Amino acid sequence: MIKVGILGAAGYTGGELIRLLLNHPEVEIVFANSESNAGNKIYDVHEGLIGETELEFSSEMPFDKVDVVYFCFGHGKSEAFLKEHTIPANVKIIDLAQDFRIKGNHDYVYGLPEIHHDEIAKCQHLANPGCFATCIQEGLLPLAKAGLLTKDIAVNAITGSTGAGQKPGATTHFSWRNNNFSVYKLFNHQHIHEICQTLNELRPEGTPRVIDTLEEGYDKEGITVDFIPYRGDFARGIFCTEVVTLNEAKTAEEIATLYKDFFKGAAFTHYSDKALDLKQVVNTNKALVHTEVFGRKVVVTSMIDNLLKGAVGQAVQNMNIMFGIDETAGLKLKASAF
Amino acid sequence: MIKVGILGAAGYTGGELIRLLLNHPEVEIVFANSESNAGNKIYDVHEGLIGETELEFSSEMPFDKVDVVYFCFGHGKSEAFLKEHTIPANVKIIDLAQDFRIKGNHDYVYGLPEIHHDEIAKCQHLANPGCFATCIQEGLLPLAKAGLLTKDIAVNAITGSTGAGQKPGATTHFSWRNNNFSVYKLFNHQHIHEICQTLNELRPEGTPRVIDTLEEGYDKEGITVDFIPYRGDFARGIFCTEVVTLNEAKTAEEIATLYKDFFKGAAFTHYSDKALDLKQVVNTNKALVHTEVFGRKVVVTSMIDNLLKGAVGQAVQNMNIMFGIDETAGLKLKASAF
Amino acid sequence: MIKVGILGAAGYTGGELIRLLLNHPEVEIVFANSESNAGNKIYDVHEGLIGETELEFSSEMPFDKVDVVYFCFGHGKSEAFLKEHTIPANVKIIDLAQDFRIKGNHDYVYGLPEIHHDEIAKCQHLANPGCFATCIQEGLLPLAKAGLLTKDIAVNAITGSTGAGQKPGATTHFSWRNNNFSVYKLFNHQHIHEICQTLNELRPEGTPRVIDTLEEGYDKEGITVDFIPYRGDFARGIFCTEVVTLNEAKTAEEIATLYKDFFKGAAFTHYSDKALDLKQVVNTNKALVHTEVFGRKVVVTSMIDNLLKGAVGQAVQNMNIMFGIDETAGLKLKASAF
Amino acid sequence: MIKVGILGAAGYTGGELIRLLLNHPEVEIVFANSESNAGNKIYDVHEGLIGETELEFSSEMPFDKVDVVYFCFGHGKSEAFLKEHTIPANVKIIDLAQDFRIKGNHDYVYGLPEIHHDEIAKCQHLANPGCFATCIQEGLLPLAKAGLLTKDIAVNAITGSTGAGQKPGATTHFSWRNNNFSVYKLFNHQHIHEICQTLNELRPEGTPRVIDTLEEGYDKEGITVDFIPYRGDFARGIFCTEVVTLNEAKTAEEIATLYKDFFKGAAFTHYSDKALDLKQVVNTNKALVHTEVFGRKVVVTSMIDNLLKGAVGQAVQNMNIMFGIDETAGLKLKASAF
Repeated sequence: MIKVGILGAAGYTGGELIRLLLNHPEVEIVFANSESNAGNKIYDVHEGLIGETELEFSSEMPFDKVDVVYFCFGHGKSEAFLKEHTIPANVKIIDLAQDFRIKGNHDYVYGLPEIHHDEIAKCQHLANPGCFATCIQEGLLPLAKAGLLTKDIAVNAITGSTGAGQKPGATTHFSWRNNNFSVYKLFNHQHIHEICQTLNELRPEGTPRVIDTLEEGYDKEGITVDFIPYRGDFARGIFCTEVVTLNEAKTAEEIATLYKDFFKGAAFTHYSDKALDLKQVVNTNKALVHTEVFGRKVVVTSMIDNLLKGAVGQAVQNMNIMFGIDETAGLKLKASAF
Repeated sequence: MIKVGILGAAGYTGGELIRLLLNHPEVEIVFANSESNAGNKIYDVHEGLIGETELEFSSEMPFDKVDVVYFCFGHGKSEAFLKEHTIPANVKIIDLAQDFRIKGNHDYVYGLPEIHHDEIAKCQHLANPGCFATCIQEGLLPLAKAGLLTKDIAVNAITGSTGAGQKPGATTHFSWRNNNFSVYKLFNHQHIHEICQTLNELRPEGTPRVIDTLEEGYDKEGITVDFIPYRGDFARGIFCTEVVTLNEAKTAEEIATLYKDFFKGAAFTHYSDKALDLKQVVNTNKALVHTEVFGRKVVVTSMIDNLLKGAVGQAVQNMNIMFGIDETAGLKLKASAF
Repeated sequence: MIKVGILGAAGYTGGELIRLLLNHPEVEIVFANSESNAGNKIYDVHEGLIGETELEFSSEMPFDKVDVVYFCFGHGKSEAFLKEHTIPANVKIIDLAQDFRIKGNHDYVYGLPEIHHDEIAKCQHLANPGCFATCIQEGLLPLAKAGLLTKDIAVNAITGSTGAGQKPGATTHFSWRNNNFSVYKLFNHQHIHEICQTLNELRPEGTPRVIDTLEEGYDKEGITVDFIPYRGDFARGIFCTEVVTLNEAKTAEEIATLYKDFFKGAAFTHYSDKALDLKQVVNTNKALVHTEVFGRKVVVTSMIDNLLKGAVGQAVQNMNIMFGIDETAGLKLKASAF
Repeated sequence: MIKVGILGAAGYTGGELIRLLLNHPEVEIVFANSESNAGNKIYDVHEGLIGETELEFSSEMPFDKVDVVYFCFGHGKSEAFLKEHTIPANVKIIDLAQDFRIKGNHDYVYGLPEIHHDEIAKCQHLANPGCFATCIQEGLLPLAKAGLLTKDIAVNAITGSTGAGQKPGATTHFSWRNNNFSVYKLFNHQHIHEICQTLNELRPEGTPRVIDTLEEGYDKEGITVDFIPYRGDFARGIFCTEVVTLNEAKTAEEIATLYKDFFKGAAFTHYSDKALDLKQVVNTNKALVHTEVFGRKVVVTSMIDNLLKGAVGQAVQNMNIMFGIDETAGLKLKASAF
């Protein structure tokens, strides 16, 4: 049994992680830390869990009793936490925040299993990808690897409200969001960083680099990811379209084959010959991808559940890989479907 | 032109009132007071109003320049406000809070036009009924007047999220409320006060009194209004059922006739021979009522838009009556329908 | 491995059953019958299943190769089917329709595990309870058993749209149902039959019988179940309130204890000390129940997922009991929660 | 009073038109034709209208008694109807279908008031623009007029379910569409025709032409409108983004000024300095537009209510212009806002 500790256990991702791990056949939750909820039953906060566990939130963090720790903090707090606390070297860390996603002065592996399976298997510290970043990358990876990204990429991605977290605010107020639609962080979403990092990592030599427009602006030489995030009026899921203009036209079959080959071994990412809709992935760890071709333009649709493949589902998938067990353990989830 | 001042103009009811009054043919908004928004355009807060008005929120309250003032405060604040401010005797007041709905040491008339039309026409100060209270009363008034309320009344009422106001919180968080359902203030909703007051006012001598269970509990002799409020996953509207058990069975036709006769002259309340659905009233000032009969049981369905007939629509209707103009002025609203 | 055949596999319940059984550790799906879809992949109809199975719909019904057959037909078709087909005596049948729920000239056991566990374990043919019926019964069973049902019972139950099945129509049109609310089959829902049957079965001698008002009308001596079904604007779930008036008041604690004791051994039904909301059960096989007490009135809230505990989840639970395996096998489902 | 006849009065647009015209101060509805509903009350079909009118559907079409006829038929039926019926030359026609939107062997004026005001004022026959087409054009008109459209345009537009009409089907089934998201007619929506027609009409000489990709495919020289339509899980409204790449960068202020100047005289189209959300236009005849600038890229957001500015609201606006009355008559609508 893998012994697990959870930090930030009272938030949305903390709760969803607990929901997964309670049914994971090879996991035991040793502690679920939440200062403000210490002593309360888990199901007092994550209310649907009544009848499934009598576990309580803890103010303790007994790192010596666990094999792996999940950081379910808000962004920026993981790094801060590590400055103030020491986690034994033999304890693996899976960080759900964005603190270590960009390569730098740290040893965290960016955990996108479709391209980093071997590094994940060997790593001690893992940075779990962002939700938008996962969905958009799943849509672009095969084209990136094939060196077909040569012009600016139009990305439109609609997210459910759980992406905005637990804290109530104006744009998550039901009266406002219900039957509403809007954009935010237009061309300015922070996930552009990690998307660019991956696309540049995959691109063959001789193909144009992808510009991190958040760092460099829009005037440099290279390809831009023109990413418009939308707030959808649903709770779970991310639905993306990615429009890529090729240098030379390819047939729909060629593109489909490229995608199928790329995702052949993937545990949760599947190519569909038919058009897709979001609820096919909601409440699962799947990513689904479909393509259509118009002249030199490839239109990709990709979709995930933002809390699962876009957060804790992928984190558990990464844990499974890190501990060398079945990649799908604990992740055979019934889609809610409706 | 009726000159209007609005206090609490930045909240949900304040905004909805402004939306109505901008199109009211006989009204001029003189001031829309909001301390915290003073100097901002109305459409900066009530955003959809761009293009309709350049009016700004004001920190002033020039009562000498208006004919009527609307109190769009939270409950309890109207009375407090009046202790600290003096409003000239010739200025009418329409209070949307519950402060003066129960008869007492004040001269406010409870403004339910279907039964108080004449008093409203003559009054200087008006207490506008609550949203649930309006909807439930519309369903029960004909039976109450006819002395047919003789046993406990089962009331179930589902409200949209706008009933909970503008301040975001756990039960108005989109991620929680979307596709969810729950009850609150079970048998304990404060509108029971005003419903009881009306039912007792209408009941013929010799029929049992209605107990205000919030005051007296459930052990006294009399009829109780067993009211279960539900939180629905929509934004606007209240949908009620009221089940009344008669002493002796009546036919469906007798009950229908009773209702039709009662509402014959009503400007906005209509009896329907067919079953109804909530969206028939959403974004209108209508109340719609339908009845079915099973043995000695009468099942009433009644419905309103909580922000309109349940709040500012009825307030404007009352204003129209108070100023002797067409009762429907400014209230011929297109239902959103979808 | 339990070998399973599914008839009516292309409908809502058929699809949900397949979603469950694909992850059931002790089940193998031998055939999934659908004439009109024969030869198509399961995931062509139940689209979210891409990547989980390559199973195809079959026009065959090899009953000799299975241990159990699920009837996922529309109501009335199970009985008709059995007149035209012979199923070997050793093959168990689980019927999801209402054809055999009422006792009569057949050997089907009414499969409500909270009260019929032993009979289910021994039965060969099982009639799976209706969705509303399950939810309402869970709310009333402890009171019924204790002989506390002595007066008419007010039942209000709101259902999601999946309760209306796959065929599109006026009241399941998104444009109509979205943000809408309505009632239907007021006091006339067919599940009153099975609810009455159970309540009469449980009631101690000397307590009044429950009238099947659909058969006998509203004029007979006895207790009535005054059931108002509502159409909610969500897809999954049933949320009920049941108001019961006792002969003599009991404390909230006495009632809570009664419920806790009653459901002590139940695999999926839990009593909650706190108020509940629907999404705590959505996408799970749970039934959750909560009670509050006002004078002599007990207000129960009960809730289930209509497709799971209200249909195929309970059917699988029953299968597990019938085959003597862990009652929760294949039913440890992650709530969608949001 | 303008005397109006309505053909196809029982559909979504027919109903919405009636809702508008009942409150239009200068209109009298002479007949509302619907074969299948002849003799029924209007409110039997468009149910919310109870209490507003006793008008009945008619099987007659007395064209000699009206000043204008609205065609609320499905696409393709207007032309067919005119082959079989004669409408007097002095009766104006407003066609809501797409039959006469493309210039050809007919005298219908394409009724987009922001650019065709004078032609509309003089015309006898009017082709009312499509919903997507209106929304997208409002977003692009100022750039088109200024000759700034020189590269392929990325258009993403999300529509509510009412855009799919009254007939229930798989993608308007509530159980499917609720909390779902999908694309359809990707790069293939028929409104591309009318958008191209307008953009080419406005483009200054020397700038590249816009290709009608539905006619010519993706291989020709020129600009393409790469339009992805999405099905949103709301009932009313269209929300668009249009990304335009300029030859030379302009400042955000320059672009904002261009838009403000262009829409200065428009009765219902407004430029907003702030980001927008869809519900600002729902249940109104407004179009709202906002722009942001990144390097050489201009990102426009535009939004309308698909049934109003995208259909019958614009039709009434056009009627007002055609009859020389106040352009906003009957169209001062209260936004539903929530």
